[in-house]
This record gives sequence, structure tokens and C-alpha cells, in this order.
Amino acid sequence: MTDPVPALDPVVLAERLMACDSVTPAMGAVFAELSAMLELLGFAVHRFVAGEAPDGPVENLVAIRQGPEGSRHFAFAGHLDVVPPGEGWTSAPFAPERRGELLYGRGAVDMKGSIASMVAAVAQVPREAGTISFLITGDEEGPARFGTVAIIDHIRATGDLPDLCLVGEPTSVHRLGDMAKIGRRGSVNIWLTAKGAQGHVAYPHLADNPIPRLVALLADLDALVLDDGSDWFQPSNLEITDLAVGNPATNVIPAEARARISIRFNDLHRGEDLVAKVTELAQAHKVETRAIISGEAFLTMPGDFSALLVDAVEAETGLTPELSTTGGTSDARFLRAVCPVIEFGLSNATMHKKDEAVAMEDLVVLSRIYRRVTLAALGH
Amino acid sequence: MTDPVPALDPVVLAERLMACDSVTPAMGAVFAELSAMLELLGFAVHRFVAGEAPDGPVENLVAIRQGPEGSRHFAFAGHLDVVPPGEGWTSAPFAPERRGELLYGRGAVDMKGSIASMVAAVAQVPREAGTISFLITGDEEGPARFGTVAIIDHIRATGDLPDLCLVGEPTSVHRLGDMAKIGRRGSVNIWLTAKGAQGHVAYPHLADNPIPRLVALLADLDALVLDDGSDWFQPSNLEITDLAVGNPATNVIPAEARARISIRFNDLHRGEDLVAKVTELAQAHKVETRAIISGEAFLTMPGDFSALLVDAVEAETGLTPELSTTGGTSDARFLRAVCPVIEFGLSNATMHKKDEAVAMEDLVVLSRIYRRVTLAALGH
Ligand SMILES: [Zn+2]
Ligand SMILES: [Zn+2]
Repeated sequence: MTDPVPALDPVVLAERLMACDSVTPAMGAVFAELSAMLELLGFAVHRFVAGEAPDGPVENLVAIRQGPEGSRHFAFAGHLDVVPPGEGWTSAPFAPERRGELLYGRGAVDMKGSIASMVAAVAQVPREAGTISFLITGDEEGPARFGTVAIIDHIRATGDLPDLCLVGEPTSVHRLGDMAKIGRRGSVNIWLTAKGAQGHVAYPHLADNPIPRLVALLADLDALVLDDGSDWFQPSNLEITDLAVGNPATNVIPAEARARISIRFNDLHRGEDLVAKVTELAQAHKVETRAIISGEAFLTMPGDFSALLVDAVEAETGLTPELSTTGGTSDARFLRAVCPVIEFGLSNATMHKKDEAVAMEDLVVLSRIYRRVTLAALGH
Repeated sequence: MTDPVPALDPVVLAERLMACDSVTPAMGAVFAELSAMLELLGFAVHRFVAGEAPDGPVENLVAIRQGPEGSRHFAFAGHLDVVPPGEGWTSAPFAPERRGELLYGRGAVDMKGSIASMVAAVAQVPREAGTISFLITGDEEGPARFGTVAIIDHIRATGDLPDLCLVGEPTSVHRLGDMAKIGRRGSVNIWLTAKGAQGHVAYPHLADNPIPRLVALLADLDALVLDDGSDWFQPSNLEITDLAVGNPATNVIPAEARARISIRFNDLHRGEDLVAKVTELAQAHKVETRAIISGEAFLTMPGDFSALLVDAVEAETGLTPELSTTGGTSDARFLRAVCPVIEFGLSNATMHKKDEAVAMEDLVVLSRIYRRVTLAALGH
């Protein structure tokens, strides 16, 4: 196979995407930039807006370049939205700047740089190799209710479902290629409310202080050992993330006390079972619960897909990526319902921080890895 | 002894005081009303303003009617400020209204009614009986930094220190006369701060969640038994009154967690010892403390003073008042440094509530009790 178009420089592509302010939810300009790149490469681009306030509207993009009849279908997935830049940047967060070996700007590694490498990779894959699609949302960092979820609804409706999907999150840690994610823990947040009866501290027998019951529950929850880890996962973990009473009066026993916990759990649990377990403990302390399961744990068992990724990474970097399931959630939790999903991308050292930056050489190497993965995933 | 002036109706006096809106800090009109009454009875009235923002300025009143050379000196103490009326009143809180046997309005029992009874009582005590003073502040319900404290500074400067002092707080419970206070528990508030390191719930090993340490400390504090009570006091009590983290992000481990406790303690403790005890426990959990001691426990041991009060109450009501040390703090915690102090006043059933009300008959009976107490305290 020969190059179908002149090579595209992923650094230049990254700069174009990073020059657009696209704090969640990303809309407009940044999607126009990506659309133009993909149309140049022969993709049919469909942009659409989903959802309403408060968790929408959200802009999404589905682009597809059909291969020959009966060919395999490989998808890249990712997001064009970025977290707010925050304070203290050396250069403007949405004016990408090359300094030395690095390209600075919000989204450099999470994950406009990665999307630029996907585009540069696909520019080096001929249409005849097979069907390729891009599943790109404008809300991954936010509520994510109308992002990848809506994209999946769309491709289910058109029937353009990929056989394999690679999510371009920044999974590398110290060096590009040292880690890929073959799974993610599940996540559930539980709000705890202890209700009592307000009163004066001098007459505690006339009041019912809800705080000791909440504190006793939290001590129980903190002592809970959910598991010792599983074959591919670290132990599940429970964190108490908030306490709230909001009582300004030093002489008043409050009527209500609240707390919030977050559980990241492995494949030994289902979200609803954990909610039931916490609720049972809470009821023993007369504390009410309300839970939101953000995602179940999932695992793409090591096999053909991970093997072709490992081969590609080894070929371009000499490193053998660790197949990990650590870290936070990602949109892979939704895509797993469509086809096997693996995440692989840039180094995450500066993600969500000020002076986010990517090594420009990494963008080039990542585009080569993505090209190898694409070809292998399409059966070449 | 004969009546020196025609009898004054304490109900009318109470209405005049209650018609003034005097939410803490009380200023102006309500003091002018009381001044006029006391000047009519031959008192030399000194009004003065103490303190600056945020806990001042506060208006205070010291009135004295000197008896013959060498006579004893009895003081009434109290406050003209009232707590905010709040919602849901049947009649306007500062438009006193007689309905049936009751007089309704903010301050009816706490403690404008009581002050009206003091004035009516003194109107029935001739100057020759001895020296009488009124120590009345405009800030007892608030910070109380520039109220009775400033009054004590003033009378120390003039040398007009009473031999005995009666504070007119509403100490009665079910019926006028069923309870007097011969002491009060001490009070200390302690702010607890646990500091850690912020992080992401998916990477707890990179963070230091301060909440479990705070929760463990609070569980320890809640389990603490400070004592089993003493001869004249109920057991000391510790309440957790606030929890605060203020973390809106479900996926963030917070950097800091705070709580507040309130201890009401008896005469087996000193405030600073309790602060030291809590601080030691807190340090074991790496939690920082900041304490404010509002007042030490105090006790006016039952003796001559309580006996003359009991006699007066029995004579007018047939009830023998329980000599109690229960309830919140009062300005008696300051006055105790000057002379023996006892608190006795109206029924507290409606104090600090909507539709605060006093039985008009109680105002009359209380003024008779106060007259007997005054005469006995002056040695008659
Ligand atoms: Zn991302
Ligand atoms: Zn009071």
C-alpha cells in the first residue's frame, strides 16, 4: 500500500485543534476544524447536537470512510472538549506554543493531540484497507449524558457499528507506550443523609443530633474492605468525599447531616450490589441513601486486540505497554457495549493541569502507532 | 414601711418595653422607656454605649438608688435585647397584645416582662430600705462582649458593687416559681480542622483524604464520658454541631475537612482542661483545634441567698423552687465575679419562639416575689 495523500503533520493538526477554546461542552469551531481535516481524507462527516439543559446541548461528530464491501470496521473514539484551564499558565492555554521539544496548550495530551495523531495516522491508510470511523464527542469531561451515549444511539440507528474501537485517552504514564488500558473500574457515588431533630446544645435530650449516627456510619464505611483485587484489577476503593451540615450557630444541634462517598470498584462487583451493601449499613444507623452509578467495571480480556496494540507499540517505541485497568472512568464505559474497546494515548503527566504539554515527537510516534493499529485491526 | 408611690402595673410596664423593636443589639427607645420608669422611682440613670463593630456598639444602663449610709446593696440584672421574632406570629411581635389571660409579644418572658416586674417591685420598696441598682444590657442574646462585661467594668470604676444580684432570666418551667438557677454549666466551642492533600478518587494513593481522620476523631469524641454529674450539676455533655467540607466534585478527594463541637460542662472541669483533652485526642488523629471558652461553670452554693428567694417564692406561689444548674449560659457567668448571683424569672415555655407570651397574672406575682426578695436581701 502507498500513501494516499501527502503526509499530514500531527503537530500542525494538534495546533489547529488546540487554538479553539473548547471547555466542556465543546461546540462549533473545534468541530469545524476536525470536520475539515476528515473531509479532506474522504470521510463522510455527520455533526449533530444532542440533549438540553442542564446536561446539554452537546455537539458530537460521527465520521466514516467506508472500505470495500465486507471489510472490517475500526473506530477511533475521543473528545474535543477540555477541562477549564485554571490559573497560572506560562502561555495562553488556547494559543498553542512550541517551546523546545514541547507543544503547550490545554488539550495537548487530553486529547486533541491524540486526535491529531489519529487523523495523521488515517492519512497514511488507504481506503481499500477497510472501514474507519471517528466517534468524537464535545462532552466527555462533563456530565457525559449526551455525548458518547448519543453517538452510540446514532451508530446503532445507521448500523455502522465498528468491530473494534480504540479510545485515545492519555494512558501513558512516564513515556509514550508504557501503558494501555484494557478495562476500567466502575464508579458509584452515594449521598448519605442523617435526619434528626434540631435543638439547643444545653438541652440535648430535647433534640436528636444526627451527626453521631452519620459519623458512626462513615467510620464503618471507612473500615470496609470490599475485596483484595482481582486478576486484572486493583482492590476496589471507597472514599468519603464530602461532609455537610451548614450550621452557623454554635449553640444549635442541627436537624440534618449529610455526607457523600465515591466507590471505584473492580469486576468482582456490580454497582447495584454495592449500593445495596452501603444502604444496609446506612439503615442500621438510620441514615438515608441516594446513589448514582456512573459506570460498571469492564474488561476487554487480553487477546487478539491487545496483542496487535502491543505489537504496534513495541515496533514504534521498543516498550511493551502494561495492560492496566487503573485510573478514572472514560467513555470506554459506554463503547464497551458496542465492541471490544482498548484505550491508548499520550503521556498523562500534565493532563488537567496548568501548562499542559505534549512532546511533539510523541505526536509523530503516536500517529505511527495508530497507523499500525488501524491496519492490523482491519486485518492487514 | 408604706408604699412610696402609687402601685405601678407591671403589665403596662411590660407593654411599654415590648412595644420597642429591640432585636440584639438593643439601642435607643427601649432604654429611654426604662430610664423614664426608673427616674420616676428616684433612680440615677447612667446610659452608655460600649464597643465597636463587629461585636458592638452595645447600649447599656446602670441605674442606682442609694439607700442610707452603710445600707446593703441589692442589684437586679437583665437585658432589653430580644432574639429575632422569626416567622409565623399570630400578632405582630412588637405590638404587644392581650388575648385572654396572656400578653403576647417578643420579650414577654425573656425578659422584658421580668424587667417590668422588677420595676413594679422596686416601686413598692422605700428608699430607706437600702441601695438598689439595675444592671441592664442591650446585648445578652448576641456576642455579649460589650454588654454585662462593660457594665461590670463601670460599677467597678464607680465602686457601686452590689452585695447580691438577681438575674431575671425566665427560669421557671411549668409554673412560675417551680425553678431557680443557682449555677450554670460552662461552655466551650472547639473548631476541628483536618488537613490532607487533594487528589482524584481514582488515585487515592496520590492524595491524603482528611475525612477518615476527622471521622475517627469525632467517633472518639462522641464516645467520651466526661463525668457522671456532680452534687449540683448534671453530667457534662459534648455535641458535634457542624461538619463542613464543601466539595462539589464527586471525583475529588478534598484537601480539608472541618467540624465543630460544643461542650457544656459542670463544676468538675475548667474550660482549658477540656480544650487540652480534646486537643490531645485531635493530635492523635492529626486534626487541628481552635477553641473559644464562652464561660466557666459556676455555682452559688445554696445558703442564705437561695433561702430568702425560696421563702419569697413559697410565700407568693406556694411552690418550692428547685435550685437548678441546667440550661444554657446567661450573663450570670460574668456577674458571679462581683457577688453571689441567682437567677429567677418567668416561665420559659415560649422563650425564643413565635407567639412568645406571659400570663399577665404571673407579672403581678413575680413583682411581689421580687419585692420580697429585695427587702430580704437588704436585710429586712
Ligand atoms: Zn480525556
Ligand atoms: Zn434572656
